[in-house]
Amino acid sequence: MNPLDLDEFKRQGYKMIDFLTDYYRNVANYPVLSQVEPNYLRKRLPDSAPFDPQPIEAILQDVQQHIIPGISHWLSPNYFAYFPSSVSTAGFLGEMLSTGLGVVGFNWVASPAATELESIVMDWLGKELSLPETFLFSGKGGGVLLNTTCEAILCTLVAAREKVLSQVGKDKINKLVVYASDQTHSALEKAAKIAGINPKNVHAIKTKKSTSFALSPKSLLSTILIDVGNGLIPFFLCATVGTTATTAIDPIGPLCSVAKNFGIWVHVDAAYAGSACICPEFRIFIDGVEEVNSFSFNAHKWFFTNLCCCCLWVKDPSDLTNSLSTYPHFLRNKASDTKQVIDYKDWQITLSRKFNALKLWMVLRSYGIGNLRNYLRNHVKMAITFEEHVKLDNRFEIFTPRTFSLVCFRLKPSTIAHQLSNGTKAHKYGNDEYVKIVNKVNKELLELINGSGKVYMTHAFVAGAFVLRCAIGATLTEEKHVIMMWKLVQDKANFLLGNKLLKAPSLA
Amino acid sequence: MNPLDLDEFKRQGYKMIDFLTDYYRNVANYPVLSQVEPNYLRKRLPDSAPFDPQPIEAILQDVQQHIIPGISHWLSPNYFAYFPSSVSTAGFLGEMLSTGLGVVGFNWVASPAATELESIVMDWLGKELSLPETFLFSGKGGGVLLNTTCEAILCTLVAAREKVLSQVGKDKINKLVVYASDQTHSALEKAAKIAGINPKNVHAIKTKKSTSFALSPKSLLSTILIDVGNGLIPFFLCATVGTTATTAIDPIGPLCSVAKNFGIWVHVDAAYAGSACICPEFRIFIDGVEEVNSFSFNAHKWFFTNLCCCCLWVKDPSDLTNSLSTYPHFLRNKASDTKQVIDYKDWQITLSRKFNALKLWMVLRSYGIGNLRNYLRNHVKMAITFEEHVKLDNRFEIFTPRTFSLVCFRLKPSTIAHQLSNGTKAHKYGNDEYVKIVNKVNKELLELINGSGKVYMTHAFVAGAFVLRCAIGATLTEEKHVIMMWKLVQDKANFLLGNKLLKAPSLA
Repeated sequence: MNPLDLDEFKRQGYKMIDFLTDYYRNVANYPVLSQVEPNYLRKRLPDSAPFDPQPIEAILQDVQQHIIPGISHWLSPNYFAYFPSSVSTAGFLGEMLSTGLGVVGFNWVASPAATELESIVMDWLGKELSLPETFLFSGKGGGVLLNTTCEAILCTLVAAREKVLSQVGKDKINKLVVYASDQTHSALEKAAKIAGINPKNVHAIKTKKSTSFALSPKSLLSTILIDVGNGLIPFFLCATVGTTATTAIDPIGPLCSVAKNFGIWVHVDAAYAGSACICPEFRIFIDGVEEVNSFSFNAHKWFFTNLCCCCLWVKDPSDLTNSLSTYPHFLRNKASDTKQVIDYKDWQITLSRKFNALKLWMVLRSYGIGNLRNYLRNHVKMAITFEEHVKLDNRFEIFTPRTFSLVCFRLKPSTIAHQLSNGTKAHKYGNDEYVKIVNKVNKELLELINGSGKVYMTHAFVAGAFVLRCAIGATLTEEKHVIMMWKLVQDKANFLLGNKLLKAPSLA
Repeated sequence: MNPLDLDEFKRQGYKMIDFLTDYYRNVANYPVLSQVEPNYLRKRLPDSAPFDPQPIEAILQDVQQHIIPGISHWLSPNYFAYFPSSVSTAGFLGEMLSTGLGVVGFNWVASPAATELESIVMDWLGKELSLPETFLFSGKGGGVLLNTTCEAILCTLVAAREKVLSQVGKDKINKLVVYASDQTHSALEKAAKIAGINPKNVHAIKTKKSTSFALSPKSLLSTILIDVGNGLIPFFLCATVGTTATTAIDPIGPLCSVAKNFGIWVHVDAAYAGSACICPEFRIFIDGVEEVNSFSFNAHKWFFTNLCCCCLWVKDPSDLTNSLSTYPHFLRNKASDTKQVIDYKDWQITLSRKFNALKLWMVLRSYGIGNLRNYLRNHVKMAITFEEHVKLDNRFEIFTPRTFSLVCFRLKPSTIAHQLSNGTKAHKYGNDEYVKIVNKVNKELLELINGSGKVYMTHAFVAGAFVLRCAIGATLTEEKHVIMMWKLVQDKANFLLGNKLLKAPSLA
């Protein structure tokens, strides 16, 4: 009758470690993309919670039998979808420790170590990224661990909003304008909605394939000038280093040069690519970061830190605390009253927070910066290998230049045209119709690949093109998995290009 | 060089289980409230991240030596502060499993089981709370697991805001008014700030000790009428069942009767007390819930589910999804396109989310509803024991009637007056000054209690009074800990009341 009986805790804890070890051992054998139908689980589980207790053995059996078939295996070595959900033994142990200690670190006094370790680790990591001193606590800036980039964007957006509204008046909220490229993550659109920014004032500036989908400072300037002319108030720019679709890189320095003339807050979202910047050879991609107001990346994407772990640095923490702090009486304490300490509740959306820093600290210590760089480089190397294979098969093309460990590719339009001309006449299709066919064939290719259950990739839709995305970075992926994956892609392409369906394409 | 080597995962995983088992075994011996000074940890840890890897043994040694002294032990059986951070073996294992699987469940297709188990468990729990069918998926409502109540309030506030703005026009955002009592958690103030609600339009209606700090429907109505008269637009009421300070209970039914006449969205925040409503004898406190729009409680507070786990139910999920959904191309998929499935990303602030349901599912199954009710009743029973002890010592008073497992008490003003009259003359103090002295003495009592390191309690400041809060609910707390705690309170009161300091109080 004790829900924290120590003998049971130990026995069941070992059992869960064994379960997960077995899971990792077998994970390559599961269909990477779950093949279940909607509502499969309601049919299998009871209608209501049990009145009586059930043993862990029965629960784990149900996990194996009913849950595992319904998950897509983000940790499979054959997982190449979205961006990776990065894990490691150290990241896992850190989360265990944080969960086990049950500390709620909303302010310093609630558990000083939770706050202090976080500030230390954020300085450590800031230094490894060569962020300017102004982003470190030693330079009057500082870092915080949030759950996701959505939160980092919302917090900085609200900070920027309050800053500008304090100058122009609260009633001007409907005049505020947010800028980004059309490649920017939907997190910005969502954060702007939540923060009460008029949706028509979220300006997604068009990018082009010819400039690798980077946001053009010139386009930014002309958009701003039109807005200013219309009596609107520019206040926030979200620049991205490593966009979701193609890892495009917005030029931070030149964008800041434009933005700063209008007092615009610049946030850099480097959710995926930020971690690579601990390697000197990749640091160049965040050049100009000394000019921005805030910078974030997700350690849970490509830094071996289990979900959730988003690292956000700001130059002026008071921008965050001015807009996000509350100080109800029940939280009053001497350390906060005398402003000797950081109270992270005022750097984030929520009050409660776990002991977030443990897992990142354990990742940094368990592997060391030297190995972490090598792990990342190894993923990039595998991406280069894949890219080279794609280039050697001239039915395919690399759609945008690879920079990190994401490769965007597709069957060339000419391949499809050639194939079509064997059956129906390719020239009878008008241009728009032809683009649709090319997209449809590539979509079919992706569906064949994922339908095999052997690998999982996702797509991007950029400049009107449906493109396959191969994101390398799952912790268990080795070169042999990449080779196997490429062979599968070729097999499915062989099948598709030889398929009758293609010879009489339907656009329905 | 493999960050997920299976032998190491198993070896280190066992080691962490052992570490936590030892921690729980010893946790009662640590000072509950950490006694470190600000910046203690920077002095102990290196300035930068290590280049070379370090073994788990060294890391755990540092945890023991440097981290443990800097945490306040929320899981100590002698922890009576704030509200409990509830844990259990099942909750811990569920978080391990979720962390270990590394699934990102932003939409159904990303991992169907993550979404489906969540919807099933929310229906299970909704039924145990006797929520009306309209809050269950079977009744066209539904539930979602968020991290904290702050998120539940922000999401529902944004949903309500968009609903009203779609009727009155986006430019009216500065006219929108939020209602709550002056006892409502600061989460509301913060959510309103983030959502762009004008802070002067967040109306915290005064409550009184004589009515146990419950929000009066009459006061709500008169406040609304004044606002409407001033051209403002009422749109959101946050009612609380179990306030942070004293577990006051706002009368849901009568408040809804007022609110509904003005089309106001009613959210019920039952962060702490909601879990008790699985016991039939406590269900009465959420009577009227059938009239509200949304209801939330934190399973990580008093439901044995490790952080973070906030349960939110809404009657009309489309209110959430209309205001929070984005559907970028990279997330498009057949199941979402055809609206056959739930995509929880559209029910929350962020895109990414863990496999949240596992831990709550494991708690419900491992203990069963029968035991869970008994655990909660046992906490209430211990609170009653404590309350009885306090009542027997007539130097003390119970400040507000106890309802759940929180007891609010203090040294009686008359006790302090009596003591003062031994030295200086009590009657020379004017009323305000006297109130300050009473508060100061009670604050000193709390400081003595917490300074002992033997227990940890926090305070509330209500109706001008500084009150000690004893919140019972840490998983390891047994009656013997409560008895020990009460003896300590008495000892410290003896010391304080016999102390010279009290005889010449300074109000500095």
